[in-house]
Amino acid sequence: MSVSASQKEIAHVLASQAKHAARRVAALSTEEKNKALHTMAEGVAAHQTAILEANARDINHARTAKLSDAMIDRLLLTAPRIDAMVQGVRDVANLDDPVGASLQTLTRPNGLIIDKVRCPIGVMLVIYESRPNVTADAASLCFKAGNAVILRGGSEAVHSNHAILDAMLGNVGDFCPAGAIQLTPTTDRALVAELLQLDELIDLVIPRGGEGLIRAVAEQSRIPVLKHYKGVCHVYVDRAADMGMALRIAINAKCSRPGVCNAMETLLVHEDVAETFLPQFAELAVPFNVELRCDEKSQAFLPNASLATEDDWRAEYLDMILAVRIVSDVEGAIDHIEQYGSHHTDAIVTADEAVAGKFMREVDSATVYINASTRFTDGAEFGKGAEIGISTDKLHARGPCGIEELTTYKYVIHGSGQIRE
Amino acid sequence: MSVSASQKEIAHVLASQAKHAARRVAALSTEEKNKALHTMAEGVAAHQTAILEANARDINHARTAKLSDAMIDRLLLTAPRIDAMVQGVRDVANLDDPVGASLQTLTRPNGLIIDKVRCPIGVMLVIYESRPNVTADAASLCFKAGNAVILRGGSEAVHSNHAILDAMLGNVGDFCPAGAIQLTPTTDRALVAELLQLDELIDLVIPRGGEGLIRAVAEQSRIPVLKHYKGVCHVYVDRAADMGMALRIAINAKCSRPGVCNAMETLLVHEDVAETFLPQFAELAVPFNVELRCDEKSQAFLPNASLATEDDWRAEYLDMILAVRIVSDVEGAIDHIEQYGSHHTDAIVTADEAVAGKFMREVDSATVYINASTRFTDGAEFGKGAEIGISTDKLHARGPCGIEELTTYKYVIHGSGQIRE
Repeated sequence: MSVSASQKEIAHVLASQAKHAARRVAALSTEEKNKALHTMAEGVAAHQTAILEANARDINHARTAKLSDAMIDRLLLTAPRIDAMVQGVRDVANLDDPVGASLQTLTRPNGLIIDKVRCPIGVMLVIYESRPNVTADAASLCFKAGNAVILRGGSEAVHSNHAILDAMLGNVGDFCPAGAIQLTPTTDRALVAELLQLDELIDLVIPRGGEGLIRAVAEQSRIPVLKHYKGVCHVYVDRAADMGMALRIAINAKCSRPGVCNAMETLLVHEDVAETFLPQFAELAVPFNVELRCDEKSQAFLPNASLATEDDWRAEYLDMILAVRIVSDVEGAIDHIEQYGSHHTDAIVTADEAVAGKFMREVDSATVYINASTRFTDGAEFGKGAEIGISTDKLHARGPCGIEELTTYKYVIHGSGQIRE
Repeated sequence: MSVSASQKEIAHVLASQAKHAARRVAALSTEEKNKALHTMAEGVAAHQTAILEANARDINHARTAKLSDAMIDRLLLTAPRIDAMVQGVRDVANLDDPVGASLQTLTRPNGLIIDKVRCPIGVMLVIYESRPNVTADAASLCFKAGNAVILRGGSEAVHSNHAILDAMLGNVGDFCPAGAIQLTPTTDRALVAELLQLDELIDLVIPRGGEGLIRAVAEQSRIPVLKHYKGVCHVYVDRAADMGMALRIAINAKCSRPGVCNAMETLLVHEDVAETFLPQFAELAVPFNVELRCDEKSQAFLPNASLATEDDWRAEYLDMILAVRIVSDVEGAIDHIEQYGSHHTDAIVTADEAVAGKFMREVDSATVYINASTRFTDGAEFGKGAEIGISTDKLHARGPCGIEELTTYKYVIHGSGQIRE
């Protein structure tokens, strides 16, 4: 490609190559894909030194650019982290191949056999930020699902990403068709913008990163985007809750790992049990230094807490901060969740089955828990093996997305000469 | 609403009412929904005279505006057409309720029971053209699937559409929550444009009509659109085809109803059988007055045919016109279909299972037939009962879409106090 090629031209070449490769990847057998994946894993293992050297360059640039310690930690590769990446690719090889699985078969009165069969989606564009391991994770998962993928990593990880992909593809030969896995040659924003216009060539965009990245991609894209907006997760403690269970679940949902999307951000408590529940909860939360931001009613039971503002009900703190509100019943809890939530994960603690049933039906979230912590919403906990993200969309895929969510279906109809009258 | 309300304000009111109603519709039992639907059907039957009068006004306007006879026929209601509409609503009442159906249940080692359950999508916006029966069809199907719906019919059918909806909702009372089924108060284009921006309130847009309408909606919309672009359907006659079967299928696919999306538009023939097949096909096509547009190779066997241009390979004629091309093998047929097709419906006629398997895997279309006519691609033929459209998208829903495709799923997780370590 000439140096003077425009971003539009580069985008078109990348996407055309991917589209061309997609048909070949879709036609690979499970054995061929698995052989390729094991070769990719071995390649990463064999090139550990080169990958670490490339990563050191990225880390040096990051320090010069005075990136935050958290950013640098996400960027950093170590021998154990490379081992984990290698194991991740092997794990994908060991996943069941979703392609070709029959979802439903129907024989019609005229003898036509209609088979709804899982098949690859086609071409994916994965846009991610600083973690270089996404290069190996996303590439292997998209490939195993029979798709071609264009990877666009963060500019701060550019050397690491290229080193990883070179290691993966170095010996893979014919089992991985040319163009099946590509990394954008630059991290120029104009190139992403051009790629996002190519809805005739690219089938799905998967942005992995913060809400800002995802909103920017969704606004620019003419292609469907699998979105993971924020996780404003709620736990509602009903009047019929077992108090011990409710305390354990609420503490776990907030404090076990506050920086992740399935952590609780707002606690809703039935007014009849607030006086019992809230002071006990506050006491258990002391060792975790949880800052409480309350409505006026709950502040009566939590004298050290500050008063919440409207913004607190919508906040994804990702921190040891919790909004607390008293509601008059399950209807009030659902109203609050529907008004302020992000449709990611919400939980109820109750022994009342009718109340649980109402909560389950009327809370419009990807995952709804009855008597369990919100923290279980992820691919591994759902038995999905590997995860490409957690969808807060309602169409195509909801909640934790694994390899099956990287496929679609087609109807294959076997006949014996049927014509329509 | 005041006369001076802006289109933006009207859009917001409509969508907010729908969003509010959606939660109530989602919570209705199957019995409640069916009672409502039977009452709606009775309402339409009881108000036949009023509907015919309203329709007469639309027809008068259409004649004054000199709309085409085809347009006027689509617009026209008659007593039998109203009977069919009434029966259509009753048929929807008799469909199995998809809401609450369990798609998959998984018990995890920690005892969590993860249930993947069908649930409504939320708020639909259905945009359609002249046929007034879509008002009853779309309203009843969206409602039975547990969704709220905003209907925006064609300006030429405005009196008919309002009369139909008034008849449906007149006696339905509490079983149909206010705002569950709404018709836009005007057919102003600016109002549609405003509705298409409300991605926080509306979940899915379903345009029903020509390619122009669908492209315009998809380009304006910030909301996911269930698209039905054109049907450029192919039949490929392989060298291993039974010639009698191939002739019957090709004639049926082209001539039984050329104006529909599942009719064949391009015939592809293996070079080894072209000399045998094409003259026989041309002879059988004579009574149907099929105009043939051929590549140079096939013209050798079809002396009366004209030469096809590049545009012919992409054309959805919806008429007694057929493009014909000779290919060297199944790979050539797939190449052609992937380059020019619309991913709607394609068929192969062959007795060679390996060739059929390759075609089935590599043709990236919603429906792929082996030894049957393309004409079977529709909801009724797929046993879906009622159809909202045929999707040429790859995500969410592909091919004929019935009531199940108007739902999504959520994960409902039952625990007994599980917390995550």
